[in-house]
Amino acid sequence: MAVGQVPFPDMPMLDGVRLGTAMAGIKKPSRRDLVVIELPESATVSGVFTRNAFCAAPVSVAKAHMAACRAEGRSPRYWLINTGNANAGTGEAGLVDARESCRVLAEAVGVEASSVLPFSTGVIGEPLPMARLSAGISPALDAREATSQAWQQAGEGILTTDTRAKGASVTLEIGGEQVVINGITKGSGMIKPNMATMLGFVVTSATVEQALLDQLLRETVDASFNCITVDSDTSTNDACMLAATGRGPRIESEADIARFRDALQDVMTALAQMIIRDGEGATKFVTLAVSGAQSRAEALDVAFTVAHSPLVKTALYASDANWGRILAAVGRAPVTDFDVNRIVIDLGDVRLVEHGGRAASYTEAAGSSVMAKEEITIAINLGRGEAEATVWTSDLSHDYVSINADYRS
Amino acid sequence: MAVGQVPFPDMPMLDGVRLGTAMAGIKKPSRRDLVVIELPESATVSGVFTRNAFCAAPVSVAKAHMAACRAEGRSPRYWLINTGNANAGTGEAGLVDARESCRVLAEAVGVEASSVLPFSTGVIGEPLPMARLSAGISPALDAREATSQAWQQAGEGILTTDTRAKGASVTLEIGGEQVVINGITKGSGMIKPNMATMLGFVVTSATVEQALLDQLLRETVDASFNCITVDSDTSTNDACMLAATGRGPRIESEADIARFRDALQDVMTALAQMIIRDGEGATKFVTLAVSGAQSRAEALDVAFTVAHSPLVKTALYASDANWGRILAAVGRAPVTDFDVNRIVIDLGDVRLVEHGGRAASYTEAAGSSVMAKEEITIAINLGRGEAEATVWTSDLSHDYVSINADYRS
Repeated sequence: MAVGQVPFPDMPMLDGVRLGTAMAGIKKPSRRDLVVIELPESATVSGVFTRNAFCAAPVSVAKAHMAACRAEGRSPRYWLINTGNANAGTGEAGLVDARESCRVLAEAVGVEASSVLPFSTGVIGEPLPMARLSAGISPALDAREATSQAWQQAGEGILTTDTRAKGASVTLEIGGEQVVINGITKGSGMIKPNMATMLGFVVTSATVEQALLDQLLRETVDASFNCITVDSDTSTNDACMLAATGRGPRIESEADIARFRDALQDVMTALAQMIIRDGEGATKFVTLAVSGAQSRAEALDVAFTVAHSPLVKTALYASDANWGRILAAVGRAPVTDFDVNRIVIDLGDVRLVEHGGRAASYTEAAGSSVMAKEEITIAINLGRGEAEATVWTSDLSHDYVSINADYRS
Repeated sequence: MAVGQVPFPDMPMLDGVRLGTAMAGIKKPSRRDLVVIELPESATVSGVFTRNAFCAAPVSVAKAHMAACRAEGRSPRYWLINTGNANAGTGEAGLVDARESCRVLAEAVGVEASSVLPFSTGVIGEPLPMARLSAGISPALDAREATSQAWQQAGEGILTTDTRAKGASVTLEIGGEQVVINGITKGSGMIKPNMATMLGFVVTSATVEQALLDQLLRETVDASFNCITVDSDTSTNDACMLAATGRGPRIESEADIARFRDALQDVMTALAQMIIRDGEGATKFVTLAVSGAQSRAEALDVAFTVAHSPLVKTALYASDANWGRILAAVGRAPVTDFDVNRIVIDLGDVRLVEHGGRAASYTEAAGSSVMAKEEITIAINLGRGEAEATVWTSDLSHDYVSINADYRS
C-alpha cells in the first residue's frame, strides 16, 4: 500500500554525472539491484550516516574512503549501491567484502579503491554474494547514462520493500545560470533515521566548497530525513549523500546560500515525505506539528512519542478519532513539569483538547471527518515556549505486520 | 489470543477483606464492571500511580484521598473500581464525577468520602456514566464476600480487552503463623507502565507499618510491573495498590522483611507476567534478559529498545529467527560508547551474535527451532559492566492491529 500518487519526476541532466544499473541477481533474478553513480573529478561530496552502533560494513568503509579522499585532497568518484543484502552484522568478513566490491569497480575504471563509496540495503546478517555482485559491476558501468531514465532506473535499483521509485528535482537560478538539484531515495520500513534515511543520493550542478556542503547537508537532513518515522527502528545502513559537481555556478554569497539551501531543503523534504507515503503498509500520511515547546529537542520528543505510539497508529489506520490515545501519548512524552491545562491539540481544523480534557466544541462527527482523510495533520501546542518541530509518519496497518512477518520468507 | 494456560488460583480468605461486584452497564450490559474491595480499619494502604502527565481524574482523586487519610491518621477503607470508562481526559467534570462516586459509596457505608479510593479503566475521554455507576454501588456492596469466588469475580470485573481474569496468591509462614498475599490485576494493551500496571490490587493479612509498606510496594513494582511492555504506551490510569490488613503477624525483623519481600515479589511478578501472556494479540511470551551493563538504567534502556521494536516484534510473531533485527535494535539503544565487538546475544540456548556479527556456530535451523516456541528468552550481554535487568514483552500480531483498530467501534 502507499498513500497518494507520486510519479517519478523528470530529472534534468547533470554535466559529469552518469548512472548505470544492472540486474546482478543479488537476492532475486530479473530486478535492478546494482547501481553505479559516477561523479566528476571537480565534485565535492558530503555524507551523513546512521548512528546505529551496529553500523553496516559499507557504512564503515564509505566513511573511511571519504576520509582517505579528503586527506589526499581528492573527491570520491563513484557511489556503488546494491539492494537485496545489507552487509550488516557480518563482522570482519563484511568489511572485506565491502572493500573488495570497491576494488573491483575502481580497477575497471582506473581510480583508487578509496574513490569508490559502497552502500548496501536489504536483509541484515547474510554474507554479500560477492561473485554475483562483482559480475554485475561491468554491466552497470556499461549502462552509464546521464538521462532522466537512468535516474529513474537508479531509483528502482536501490529499492527494498518500497513499492515505487522515489525521485525529486528542483531547478533554481543563481547568478543568471540554472542550478539543478536531483535526488533519489529509498526506504519503507526500519525507518527512524538518526542521521539520514536508509539511502538518499542527491547531486547538484552547483559549485559548493566542502565545508559549506557538509553544513548544508546536515541542516537539511535534520529537518527532513531526521524528522520521519515509520516504525521507530533506526537502520544499520542509513546514509544520505550529497554531491556538488562543481560544473555550475558557485554558491558563496549569503543570499545565494540561503536560496540554494531552501531549494535543497525542498528536495530533501520531498524525498523524506515520499518514504513516509510509501511506508510499509501505509494508508495514511500524518504530519505531527508540535509548537509552543521550550526547545526543538522537546518538540521533537513529543512529536516522536505520538508518532511511535502503536495505539495512535492503529487508531489512524482505523480512521478512528480516538483522541484519547493522542492525549495519552502526549502525556507520557519525556517532558518535565508538563502543565496539561496549557496543552492544545488540533486534528486538522478540529480542536480536540484544551483545558486538560476534550474541547467543549468537539464533536465525534467533526473528528471522524478529519480522520477519514488520507492526509492528516495533528497540531500540538504545548503552551510553554517558542520552539517547534514537524515530524511525518504513517499508520500501523495489517499490511505492516504482514510485510514484516513475511519479509524473509 | 493469549500465551499458555493460566487458571485463576484459589485465593485464601483474608480476615476483614470483602469483595463485591455488580453489573452496572457502564459500557456493555450483562458484564461485571463495578468492583468494591473493603479493607479493615486496621489496614495500612500504599499505592503507586502512572507518571503520565494527562493522568486520569480517579488517579488525582485517589492520591488526594490517600493524602487526606494519612494527614488524619486514618486508613482508606474502600477501593472502588469500574471498567468500561477510564474517566481520563475529562477535565474538571471528570474530577467532580470521581469525587461523587466516592461520596455515594461513603454515604452508603458510613465512612468519610476520602476513605474511598476510585479507580477507572476503559475508553479515554468520555464522561463517566454517573447514574449507572452510582446505581451499581449498592448491589456491589450487597454482594460483598471474602471467598475465593469473590476474588475471581473482582478479577473479572476490572478487565477491559483482557481475555481472562488474572490472580496470584502466595502463603508463607512468619513467626509460626500463616501470612497470605492475594493479588488481582488487569491490563492487555496500552501497557508500558511507568509506575504500575494499568490496575493491580494486592492485599496481605500481615501487619506492615506504613513506611515499610510504601518501600516494599515501590521495590517490588520496579522489578515487575515496571519491567513489562506490550506496546510502549503508558496509560493515563495505571495504579497498583497494596494493603496490609494488620490482622496477621507483624513484619519487622530484617529476616521476616526479606522473606515477605520475596513472597510479595513473587505475587507482583506473576501478576505482571500474566498481563504479558494476555497482551493484546499476543502469541509469544518473550523474556529480555540484559546483563553486563554499566547500570540498571542502561540495561533497561537496551531491553526496552528491543522490546519496543516493531520489527523484532513482527519477527517474533512470524517465528522468524531474523536476528539481524535484534542486533539492529540493540545497536540503536541510547547507550554511549557502545563497543559492538563485546556484545553477545543468545536466543534461548543458541548463540546469535558475537564479535560484532553473526556467531560462527549459528545455524538457521537452530535459531528457527527456538523461535518456533511460545516462550522465548533473548539474552543480551553488553560486556561492559555488572548491572542487569529483565523485561517481559509480547509479539506484534495481526490481532494486535485488529483489536486496536476496532476497539471503540
